[in-house]
Amino acid sequence: MSPEINHPETLAEVEAVFAEYEQALVTNDVDVLDRLFWNSPHTLRYGAGENLYGFQAIQDFRNARPSVGLSRTISAKSVTTFGRDFAVANVEFTRESTPRIGRQTQTWVRMDDGWRVVAAHVSLMDTPKG
Amino acid sequence: MSPEINHPETLAEVEAVFAEYEQALVTNDVDVLDRLFWNSPHTLRYGAGENLYGFQAIQDFRNARPSVGLSRTISAKSVTTFGRDFAVANVEFTRESTPRIGRQTQTWVRMDDGWRVVAAHVSLMDTPKG
Repeated sequence: MSPEINHPETLAEVEAVFAEYEQALVTNDVDVLDRLFWNSPHTLRYGAGENLYGFQAIQDFRNARPSVGLSRTISAKSVTTFGRDFAVANVEFTRESTPRIGRQTQTWVRMDDGWRVVAAHVSLMDTPKG
Repeated sequence: MSPEINHPETLAEVEAVFAEYEQALVTNDVDVLDRLFWNSPHTLRYGAGENLYGFQAIQDFRNARPSVGLSRTISAKSVTTFGRDFAVANVEFTRESTPRIGRQTQTWVRMDDGWRVVAAHVSLMDTPKG
């Protein structure tokens, strides 16, 4: 049986945790960012300029990253939930530092300790927005 | 309760459907590519140079795309399943046409009619591979 799509309570949960992540990102709250990523060697994050495999590599990257210039404006957003425990969250965003459109894909899974990002992909589109 | 990670039969199923998708991609078998994407307005695909929302937009893009130059070599691969019905598949790849490293993220969900991609993100990393 196909999973229920966008069960209202589940969608609200994922929207909330997505918002928590976004706020932590733009304020570089590394503790929250670390908490919201699945602590597993299977977790991965493809960033604009790096491919990180495993929670430890992602954590190391965040700790080394400059905390300035992370502010961004979300220009499109799509969150979809599947059943009660799985979701994808996708956004387009812009930053003042570049005319290119950013895209962020996150896959969220409900774990014992809450919703966690199990895979993320961030990139800048090759064509300019202007 | 956290979902079971990489249940062997589920992982084998997703590996098989991932391989089917990859073969269809490099041979531009649009019928198979269309079948393996979830037929829903919620489906999305961020490509190297386009952001496509909804199955129809993805299908239109595939039908308009030149069928040459799609061949690629996968240089890293990570497939992880969560429970029996949910998975992420991530690969790095290279093409002869560019020195940049490609990355492809797919989120797969088991629907009534089989495993389907519900979200995909393809990008070229900003730093060269060489």
